[in-house]
Amino acid sequence: MKPVLDETHDPNVQSWVESANDAGSDFPIQNLPFGVFRPRAESADARVGVAIGESILDLRGMQSKGLLADNSVPLASACAINSLNPLMALGPGARRALRRRLHTLLRDDAPASGRSSVSRHLIAQADVEMLLPAQIGDYTDFYASIFHATNVGKLFRPDNPLLPNYKYVPIGYHGRASSLVVSGTPVRRPCGQTRDAASNDAPKFGPTRSLDYELEVGFFVGTGNSLGETIPIAEAEEHIFGICLVNDWSARDIQAWEYQPLGPFLAKNFATSISPWVVTMEALAPFRTAAFARAEGDPPPLPYLFDESDQRYGGLELWLEVSILSPQMREAGVAPVVLGSSNFRDMYWTMAQMLAHHASNGCNLRAGDLLASGTVSGAEKTARGCLLELTSRGADPVTLPSGERRKFLEDGDEVILRGCCEREGFRRIGLGNCRGTILPASTS
Amino acid sequence: MKPVLDETHDPNVQSWVESANDAGSDFPIQNLPFGVFRPRAESADARVGVAIGESILDLRGMQSKGLLADNSVPLASACAINSLNPLMALGPGARRALRRRLHTLLRDDAPASGRSSVSRHLIAQADVEMLLPAQIGDYTDFYASIFHATNVGKLFRPDNPLLPNYKYVPIGYHGRASSLVVSGTPVRRPCGQTRDAASNDAPKFGPTRSLDYELEVGFFVGTGNSLGETIPIAEAEEHIFGICLVNDWSARDIQAWEYQPLGPFLAKNFATSISPWVVTMEALAPFRTAAFARAEGDPPPLPYLFDESDQRYGGLELWLEVSILSPQMREAGVAPVVLGSSNFRDMYWTMAQMLAHHASNGCNLRAGDLLASGTVSGAEKTARGCLLELTSRGADPVTLPSGERRKFLEDGDEVILRGCCEREGFRRIGLGNCRGTILPASTS
Repeated sequence: MKPVLDETHDPNVQSWVESANDAGSDFPIQNLPFGVFRPRAESADARVGVAIGESILDLRGMQSKGLLADNSVPLASACAINSLNPLMALGPGARRALRRRLHTLLRDDAPASGRSSVSRHLIAQADVEMLLPAQIGDYTDFYASIFHATNVGKLFRPDNPLLPNYKYVPIGYHGRASSLVVSGTPVRRPCGQTRDAASNDAPKFGPTRSLDYELEVGFFVGTGNSLGETIPIAEAEEHIFGICLVNDWSARDIQAWEYQPLGPFLAKNFATSISPWVVTMEALAPFRTAAFARAEGDPPPLPYLFDESDQRYGGLELWLEVSILSPQMREAGVAPVVLGSSNFRDMYWTMAQMLAHHASNGCNLRAGDLLASGTVSGAEKTARGCLLELTSRGADPVTLPSGERRKFLEDGDEVILRGCCEREGFRRIGLGNCRGTILPASTS
Repeated sequence: MKPVLDETHDPNVQSWVESANDAGSDFPIQNLPFGVFRPRAESADARVGVAIGESILDLRGMQSKGLLADNSVPLASACAINSLNPLMALGPGARRALRRRLHTLLRDDAPASGRSSVSRHLIAQADVEMLLPAQIGDYTDFYASIFHATNVGKLFRPDNPLLPNYKYVPIGYHGRASSLVVSGTPVRRPCGQTRDAASNDAPKFGPTRSLDYELEVGFFVGTGNSLGETIPIAEAEEHIFGICLVNDWSARDIQAWEYQPLGPFLAKNFATSISPWVVTMEALAPFRTAAFARAEGDPPPLPYLFDESDQRYGGLELWLEVSILSPQMREAGVAPVVLGSSNFRDMYWTMAQMLAHHASNGCNLRAGDLLASGTVSGAEKTARGCLLELTSRGADPVTLPSGERRKFLEDGDEVILRGCCEREGFRRIGLGNCRGTILPASTS
């Protein structure tokens, strides 16, 4: 559907929370992403909040003082719990009303009397621990970048890189919900079975030697559907709450040996990291763009995946970047170096298409379920979203500023994902970041 | 580990709940499976219970009256909630103590005074609705029958039916948790993309024409492991709570088109049915048997999947059967007809191997997670656990007593799974059944 712009997108509005007005802030008043946090100082409960500049507005506190205007039981319950699931389930109407209310309270022309009551519920982001934003019942990972699919396909099937279903089916598979972790959680190098593809020797069990990141975008289900019911493509966006960054850590050697015929399993399910702030569909409205232009000769989407409005606005101008900081770089005080940067507008399938496809067989999606895009790569070599592609499976290592070379990740490496939306005439909207550092394999 | 037999396995013990003493009962006093039920007559809460003959013992009621002897907070909490997750998390020690206590209370030489207080907490199974036994955080499906893998492989790759990883890797993939349903829930025929393999035409979207069942055994995780930690094979059985029947409904035409390269997705996640009673590892102790004997020349399991005790006792003599009742048969008053019967002892991988493999990369398993075996097939044609195998993908239809033929399931067909353990010198232990009837595809 056509994105709606209103006063919450006005780039000239500033906030009385001054850090939100910095040009480089990910969280200006035009963003207002939701997350779950726990104050470090107290033995405090986790609660839901909204990022504004370098602060967080505590929604539980706001609601308990009647400051959110809406005193309904559903919103009160949604603010009283330690996950965003109930707020997600409330649907787009309640979310939009809450956004407008928060915008009114936080803009710099808000009455001074209101400011002082609101400011009591602000806490510095530096003083909190961020948690997973939702209880994620099911996590599904797609494969929606044709550039990624083609690059990976070339490595495994040089003559036939793209399988015949790719342009018809938004390919996806179920990932592991239990091992989703929030940004900052260290990731232990997994052990598993691997076998040298050239040999017929028995496989060996040990630490992976080709640990990789995958630069992805995740989107959370808001209102779900009942088992046996579908979600028409024209309504699909109304079922999406918002987006985050996803690093789908992957052990390529384990994957190559295990994935036939049922897909990746232990190569992926040891950990998946996500950024803590969920940027709502409303905040993204100014950055919507046409769906990826299919090449001449490509088939059109089947009718259940085709919607005129989705074709016009279903894409998203979202610039993404993945950086690495090795232990040597850290020691030398060198900044993380960018390994790849891509744009989410280059995905072959839109979020609405992925969601409508997922529910097209009657599979029930629930509030808080996470769908991820798969690695976001572009046409250029600089736009490759994982090391498998970037180094051609290790054949062409990258050189870091420290002079070190990387085919795949080493212990101690930190991987940092970032993302932001920029467009002339609008305030920049950031996704924050998604970090993870590799711990050595367990020796037990 | 070696299964322990004690007085709870004594075949001569009878119960004062007389229906438990019928030779054909699935639930004699030697079984005592756990489940979650809701009494129909009252607007009552769901609660945990134990099956005994044709009745259920209400554990919440028993605990509230102090009848379970253990008045600890953990057990009281575990009995007060509407899922088995907390009881599962308590681990094998608490579970075994509870089993011994229930056995003492229900045996026919229990003091009459105790009987009358216990009998107040019995309710007829006919008067309750059974629910899913646990909140299943993650559901994983394996592929552990070499007969099934070979039969299916022959249909798709006649020259190379079994992939090179099969004898090393307990192949598995993540299924959908949200669409797990309890036995008795109708299953709507899914729609999806299918393409005639022989043509190069565009795929079509519509109701599946090759809807299938899969006869499987599921096992629930009891105590889990932390992210980044493993579960050694020698300890794996201590992490299993018990087993149930699983019907992994599958749309074969959707599957054939979508599954490359990331595995089955919409072909499976529209519904998976499970039986409501979880038969504990203790109840199964008399029926443990050696792991499947690998053929001469087969590689031994890698060390992380090898345990002497698991090789000797890791198998399970569990007879399984799948039947069908078509609408015509129902109308004619004909009984369901058996389509296949197999034995769980014929699996290439043991439950301990599947669980140890799952956690071998540090993937965290949680109490209530469900692992399923994959289709249980045997060497004989009569032991094929799905129609894909039984009819050779529809080439060789089966004929029902009504004269109808089936390549795959038709609307209105009911599929019934059953399972039981029998061994000379022990009481027969049943798993109950797992039923589902096919509803026509939605026309919306």
